[in-house]
Amino acid sequence: MKKNYLMTPGPTPVPSEVLLAQARPMIHHRTPEFDNAIRECVEGLKYVFQTEKSDVLLFAASGTGGMESAIVNCFSPGDKVVVCHNGKFGQRMELIAKTYGLDVNVLQYGWQQIVNPADVAAFLQANPNTRGVIITQSETSSGVLNDVQTVGEIVKDYPDCVLIVDSITGIGAVECKTDEWHLDVVMTGSQKGLMLPPGLAAVAVSPKAWRAYERATLPRFYFDWMRYKKNLAQNTTPFTPPVSLVLGLAEALKLIREEGLENTIIRHARLAEATRQGCEALGLELFAPAEGRGNAVTPVCVPDGVDGKKLVSVMKNKYGVTVAGGQDEYAGRIIRIGHLGYFGEFDIITTLAALEMTLKELGFAFEPGTGIRAAEAVFMEG
Amino acid sequence: MKKNYLMTPGPTPVPSEVLLAQARPMIHHRTPEFDNAIRECVEGLKYVFQTEKSDVLLFAASGTGGMESAIVNCFSPGDKVVVCHNGKFGQRMELIAKTYGLDVNVLQYGWQQIVNPADVAAFLQANPNTRGVIITQSETSSGVLNDVQTVGEIVKDYPDCVLIVDSITGIGAVECKTDEWHLDVVMTGSQKGLMLPPGLAAVAVSPKAWRAYERATLPRFYFDWMRYKKNLAQNTTPFTPPVSLVLGLAEALKLIREEGLENTIIRHARLAEATRQGCEALGLELFAPAEGRGNAVTPVCVPDGVDGKKLVSVMKNKYGVTVAGGQDEYAGRIIRIGHLGYFGEFDIITTLAALEMTLKELGFAFEPGTGIRAAEAVFMEG
Repeated sequence: MKKNYLMTPGPTPVPSEVLLAQARPMIHHRTPEFDNAIRECVEGLKYVFQTEKSDVLLFAASGTGGMESAIVNCFSPGDKVVVCHNGKFGQRMELIAKTYGLDVNVLQYGWQQIVNPADVAAFLQANPNTRGVIITQSETSSGVLNDVQTVGEIVKDYPDCVLIVDSITGIGAVECKTDEWHLDVVMTGSQKGLMLPPGLAAVAVSPKAWRAYERATLPRFYFDWMRYKKNLAQNTTPFTPPVSLVLGLAEALKLIREEGLENTIIRHARLAEATRQGCEALGLELFAPAEGRGNAVTPVCVPDGVDGKKLVSVMKNKYGVTVAGGQDEYAGRIIRIGHLGYFGEFDIITTLAALEMTLKELGFAFEPGTGIRAAEAVFMEG
Repeated sequence: MKKNYLMTPGPTPVPSEVLLAQARPMIHHRTPEFDNAIRECVEGLKYVFQTEKSDVLLFAASGTGGMESAIVNCFSPGDKVVVCHNGKFGQRMELIAKTYGLDVNVLQYGWQQIVNPADVAAFLQANPNTRGVIITQSETSSGVLNDVQTVGEIVKDYPDCVLIVDSITGIGAVECKTDEWHLDVVMTGSQKGLMLPPGLAAVAVSPKAWRAYERATLPRFYFDWMRYKKNLAQNTTPFTPPVSLVLGLAEALKLIREEGLENTIIRHARLAEATRQGCEALGLELFAPAEGRGNAVTPVCVPDGVDGKKLVSVMKNKYGVTVAGGQDEYAGRIIRIGHLGYFGEFDIITTLAALEMTLKELGFAFEPGTGIRAAEAVFMEG
């Protein structure tokens, strides 16, 4: 028997309260019980998205479905948008926008760079007819945290330009102040900070985004925001919702409310800091730049002489600790330690211990225990 | 304490094996364990869809997402299609096709009529440039079963015309021989005959439908079939799949294989027949016409002098038996008893008993016990 530890940036571990809520006998979705669950979920999501102005809509879909919904509901073919691209998920937004025939401009950065808000400002000044700015808050592929607050300050002065924020691994792990920061469309997926299995996407839609919706001519049906908004007014959904995930979400949101969102974010910040300190103490290099590191995932460079794929497989197969590898050109070159959602201090200790033992086995030279010691120091600071 | 009985045509009751599979700790979706589950699901779905030629693709979506996928993957704007429309879900296909700019022609029938295959033949003869025929096999709104086999024989002679079959409440309840009947696109949702919670759509795509895909120019990303097909070749998915639903599906498909698909369909036919006989013995009129009644749901006309909404609410609130009401213009005029998925004989007995007691309370004149007696007679026939 081996205990398993899921230390990936999604899917993330699901609390047993949530797992058990999902194991309850099925109920019908056109009933007062289920209407209540929908109402609780929407209220709870508004709390987590820090919004009173935006509607929060729920889709039976992966996070990518939420991303696509932003494109098809806000734009018409040929609309000029600018995609800030510094990792795999920025690239996905670029792909979706191109698929739907938008005039896609890209602010391209390396995976180890943050998006520079001044570039967005310059682009909008040169292209005042831009209809959308698209940015990833927390790049799951690289661990980079982009400054969407400053970008929000820039975009808010363009009344016909919406700011679309992929916060799929941001929400619940870092601050994401939808109203205060003027974020028009913000999305997340259930298998991230919301501590659920995958299958549910949540999208916040601001009044400015609704104005974009009114102008937009791209065809849409399954992801048509208005169908969801109209049904939400009656605490229901236009199509059969993923009932078990919605019931689970209501439980997960209770857990977040009990902890308090501020505390949830502080917990994530400490887990991330301990992971970073622990890895650096082992002599490993962090992948994301110091000026923009998120709380969801810590990517670490595989040291010279160590086989990155073997590192991941020994951690998983010998120690039961699943971390993610790198994606695309960083496959085998980085490992990504997720600490987004239902995680506590000893999950980080466990992971660092498994990492230490694995690195030792793979011939990397360091003093065992130093990683743990550094993490403990972070946790003892309170 | 009141025991609850979910007798609706979706969501349907979920077997405890499946509920418990979903309550297992989360696993990552890029692992051999999960790849195995995907492989098992695809093999099991091919068995249930009775296909070797078609690919069966899985989407994190409601059934409506599967319906939309058929439209955006098979057609280009302006393509001529004909929608056979004899209920709410045929109407939905019409709406989706119109949303995406197809040249939509409708063969319109009443909700209590079956689609006449001769009308399809005549339409195709008069319009040989038609690119798609769209039909609902089992109309959940009316209980009508359309003859997709005969329609398949007609459409197969048009090499550039695909036959799209909404079998959302057909698969697992009635015969749906994808290969033998020349059905090009067949879809179902998880919360129906597959005995899962909602949130997963399965779509079978024939070689002829793949040829339509190659011609089709409508934009698509989240529902782009080719992305799913390419990933399925590695037993994986392009976007994070609904892990718990997929693990549940693997269990549910085991249960269907254990029973054997033929037996599953025979069981559904007996449950439907007992429900029909029971209701008729009470003096109630069946809604669907004798020449086309499905096995998924039995709609029954509310008798004169009885309040249809009260009938549904007394059954639910006093007896714990949830049946569905009518939709759209039939709200309050029919009740729909679902028996699709995880149902046995005594679920029908329970429902008929609750119906008898409720009808008595609402002043309808009949001899109590006659409904049950008629159902027992069906079950005793073996």
